[in-house]
Amino acid sequence: MTFLRQTKMDRLLSPDELEEALRNVLVTRYHNLHPFHKLMNAGDLTLGQMQAWALNRYCYQYTIPKKDAIVLSRSEDPEFRREWRKRLVDHDGEDGDTGGIERWLRLAEGVGLDRDLVTGRSAALPATRFAVGAYIDLVSNNSMLVAVASSLTELFSPIAIGERVPAMLKRYDYITDETLAYFKPRMTQAPRDAEFALDLTKKWAITPDQQGEAIDALITKCDILWAMLDALFHAYVAPGHVPPGAFVPEEA
Amino acid sequence: MTFLRQTKMDRLLSPDELEEALRNVLVTRYHNLHPFHKLMNAGDLTLGQMQAWALNRYCYQYTIPKKDAIVLSRSEDPEFRREWRKRLVDHDGEDGDTGGIERWLRLAEGVGLDRDLVTGRSAALPATRFAVGAYIDLVSNNSMLVAVASSLTELFSPIAIGERVPAMLKRYDYITDETLAYFKPRMTQAPRDAEFALDLTKKWAITPDQQGEAIDALITKCDILWAMLDALFHAYVAPGHVPPGAFVPEEA
Repeated sequence: MTFLRQTKMDRLLSPDELEEALRNVLVTRYHNLHPFHKLMNAGDLTLGQMQAWALNRYCYQYTIPKKDAIVLSRSEDPEFRREWRKRLVDHDGEDGDTGGIERWLRLAEGVGLDRDLVTGRSAALPATRFAVGAYIDLVSNNSMLVAVASSLTELFSPIAIGERVPAMLKRYDYITDETLAYFKPRMTQAPRDAEFALDLTKKWAITPDQQGEAIDALITKCDILWAMLDALFHAYVAPGHVPPGAFVPEEA
Repeated sequence: MTFLRQTKMDRLLSPDELEEALRNVLVTRYHNLHPFHKLMNAGDLTLGQMQAWALNRYCYQYTIPKKDAIVLSRSEDPEFRREWRKRLVDHDGEDGDTGGIERWLRLAEGVGLDRDLVTGRSAALPATRFAVGAYIDLVSNNSMLVAVASSLTELFSPIAIGERVPAMLKRYDYITDETLAYFKPRMTQAPRDAEFALDLTKKWAITPDQQGEAIDALITKCDILWAMLDALFHAYVAPGHVPPGAFVPEEA
């Protein structure tokens, strides 16, 4: 039921033009442009705000392998499934120690959060949970083209990480390489996954309606990431209205 | 997949104690307490902020009869379905002129919005759409007890309307009785529906776990309504960061 815009294309784009249109969605809507990330990269977040980010972003990390399992379950193609399965390996790891989710928990602990508080998810902002729920819904109840194209935010993920990691290491003395271990493998995993998903999107979207659908899927995914940061900003930056029951940092 | 807290009850409550616990959720979390509604009732919203509220709230109104149809579809009991069906009648009306959705559109037009902009929903905040999507998910993928108990915000709806309608008529000269025609029937419909849902909740929740589940369902529903107002506040009050693609009022 997650809403998709009904973008009407006035003509069929070439595969390269479609790629450009998709990249243009990211140029204008990817969450590295959000004021919360700008504060983070400028070194202007308090510890409490950093904790709120790590705690809430965990809900997204938690959701990703479930989202990818839904995509796997909908595919009829073993070759597709073999490739997409790598995403599960990346996030869940080979054991309890090596996956992205575990690395995210180390990041959360590295900024001083209790692991159980994070994994419990009840202290996250409801808006965060609703946004990641919309992602699950998006890939469950739309075409496989939508499910694949919505992952294309990963095209820009190395850009965001490339800005974020050096900025965080430089500007927050409690953040170390070890805290940020999550991000390093993402610099190679995300481009590999994004390339595969982009090739498929260009191969599958061969009518104007399908091309519009791919673009709309990516817009909705950008909306999801943006809404998560809007909710963080509202609750923890300005005006600082934490909704009932959500995490309240010890220091303001 | 919508998250439910796992409230653990330390003992079985009597039906009256359960009702008190449910009412206490509303006393502390119902959205009449939200700063956005306080601004509205104080007469402090600009026309553009009022428009943003009407436009976004339409997404909720639009969703309600779909939500109720899902609840109907899950019931095995004709008596339940006959009673719950009244909600569809209230929202969809007997013809194109008499239902709650149409009255909400009149409200939206009354504050100067274009009907097509409202019904298109693409100008609403993504966070609004994600929150109402979570409501659909909540009633689809949990027990019927959760589906029914989550509707109990209607216990307090007459309180909110009783505050809002006189305040809006008094403080905004562009708002008339006609603009607010949506609210008048709700003053009798909501208590009728809430009484039925409360009786069922008390009848069905006969173990501590079920009672916790009913309370959690109502908390999640309050979170949904609260998150919608948080998103409005962030985008249109302070700091006034409208997310990409969402409604921008003509006057600030």
